[in-house]
Amino acid sequence: MTTLTIADLGCSSGPNTLTIVSNLIKQFQLHNNKPIQYQIFFNDLPSNDFNSIFISLQNFLEDLKNQIGADFGTCFFNGVPGSFYGRLFPNKSLHFVHSCYSLQWLSQVPREMEIINKGSIFIDNKSPKNVIEGYYKQFQKDFSLFLKCREEEVVSGGRMVVTLVGRTDEYPSNQDYCYAFTLLNLALNGMVAEGIVEEEKVDRFNIPNFMPSPKEIKDEVLKEGSFIINELKVSSIDWNFYNTELEGTKHTSFVGNSYNNIAKCIRSVTEPLMIPHFGEAIIEELFYRYSKIVKDEMSKKRIEFTNLTISLTRI
Amino acid sequence: MTTLTIADLGCSSGPNTLTIVSNLIKQFQLHNNKPIQYQIFFNDLPSNDFNSIFISLQNFLEDLKNQIGADFGTCFFNGVPGSFYGRLFPNKSLHFVHSCYSLQWLSQVPREMEIINKGSIFIDNKSPKNVIEGYYKQFQKDFSLFLKCREEEVVSGGRMVVTLVGRTDEYPSNQDYCYAFTLLNLALNGMVAEGIVEEEKVDRFNIPNFMPSPKEIKDEVLKEGSFIINELKVSSIDWNFYNTELEGTKHTSFVGNSYNNIAKCIRSVTEPLMIPHFGEAIIEELFYRYSKIVKDEMSKKRIEFTNLTISLTRI
Repeated sequence: MTTLTIADLGCSSGPNTLTIVSNLIKQFQLHNNKPIQYQIFFNDLPSNDFNSIFISLQNFLEDLKNQIGADFGTCFFNGVPGSFYGRLFPNKSLHFVHSCYSLQWLSQVPREMEIINKGSIFIDNKSPKNVIEGYYKQFQKDFSLFLKCREEEVVSGGRMVVTLVGRTDEYPSNQDYCYAFTLLNLALNGMVAEGIVEEEKVDRFNIPNFMPSPKEIKDEVLKEGSFIINELKVSSIDWNFYNTELEGTKHTSFVGNSYNNIAKCIRSVTEPLMIPHFGEAIIEELFYRYSKIVKDEMSKKRIEFTNLTISLTRI
Repeated sequence: MTTLTIADLGCSSGPNTLTIVSNLIKQFQLHNNKPIQYQIFFNDLPSNDFNSIFISLQNFLEDLKNQIGADFGTCFFNGVPGSFYGRLFPNKSLHFVHSCYSLQWLSQVPREMEIINKGSIFIDNKSPKNVIEGYYKQFQKDFSLFLKCREEEVVSGGRMVVTLVGRTDEYPSNQDYCYAFTLLNLALNGMVAEGIVEEEKVDRFNIPNFMPSPKEIKDEVLKEGSFIINELKVSSIDWNFYNTELEGTKHTSFVGNSYNNIAKCIRSVTEPLMIPHFGEAIIEELFYRYSKIVKDEMSKKRIEFTNLTISLTRI
């Protein structure tokens, strides 16, 4: 029986982890009616909660069988601990690679950022030119390493679909690289002004993230040379999620909660970095202030973030 | 580069999990000096603590590199949640399968045991003949299913080494199938006599375990027909571990603790089954009594358990 090997890189742990795989299998079954074997690899850093993914798999499989019929094939699930900025799989062993909202995370904060990016925790409109360049260099290094590793792991003709947070305009940017982090910086600096957080602590903290432009992504793919780009899609997501039409349905009933969702989302991704640096004591207060700032900003203007989705084929 | 795929079935989580893999790689490097890719699958039930295995892998790899040199090849690690009494891997995808102290565990307690095996929690010298036969039938069903699944997963010429707790004599047995469980039964029945545990609760509790004889193992392998037996080794392990010569070294300094090791070992494998049935309240008292009984028995006589190790090749 044919085996399709699928890797979800940076899968995290939660309901979304399994949604991706579910959609992939449904799509595949739509176009290929024969039962096949799916070998699915869930990858994330070793500190990810793989136990909770594994425990939820039985219910997931039952739901899937109820939706598309029990005879769609067999699923073999695997957890793969490790950084995707390194090799994770044997040579030519993958048919399809997926990664969503992971590749904007750099392998490390670019060196010397703490010295030159004073008062800011990320690239914002006050950041000197060499901060943006330092971040960009780190992105180039990381993204090309990611491509190089996948080049060895994906079979010829295999596909890769990557979604990451990016930006629309080219360098020099007309806007902050990530407004969500700029507002978090605002909340932190408010606490510095009141003497709750040391200024020097903010100077030494930087978020290891980079939002590339479509051209910056394309350049790395062309330079590496082993994947062709089938499509590069740029889409804007309204922070007020319920203003975004999804599958033709416009939700308007929960508008008032969107600021809370954004604040929670940013908390969930930044908290694990902030606690070791700032200590746990300031966290509740910081995100309380942050949530108020986000609510205030969203009431004044429409804010969006940019998704880049790249579909690639291994030559 | 050549890839060797290795599965450790019923790997559990703890230092022993990684010792097996470490020894396998060392042995392989002794006989094959070229660097190769190892893809290693750690399998156990979804409730196993895979997170703790994954977190320990980096130190493990560093230790291994210090021992055999950094250029031995590349290791790709995977966690595989699921029962080995079912398919876990795609067709013809494994080169080497290992399983240690797992296959004496049945997929379930044989049906109706609670009705006919009154007062006993396992096969002992009071068990009626049909109890032994019920357990044996479940073992035949499970072990043949295990072989059938591995038949599909292991490449032609692939190897499998299985170690399980067994017995030396044939049916009808001259001794209890597992003296460790017989003594646990003794501790439980002591608590029944004192009114601490309900008699009916003991009647309805049975351990899903079976210790096969060498012939019972061979019969299933021959019946299934897709593996040949290279070797079937029977060995006796003294409960007083320090009386057993290992690699020429006789340890005698910790004799007094062996009873404690046995009691802890049996507690670790039976507690997860006992708590849902008997409740957590009796556990401390039960294993305190058990430890005393084990100490007493070991002071009176030499007690051993039997290991069966089978080396098989996929035809």
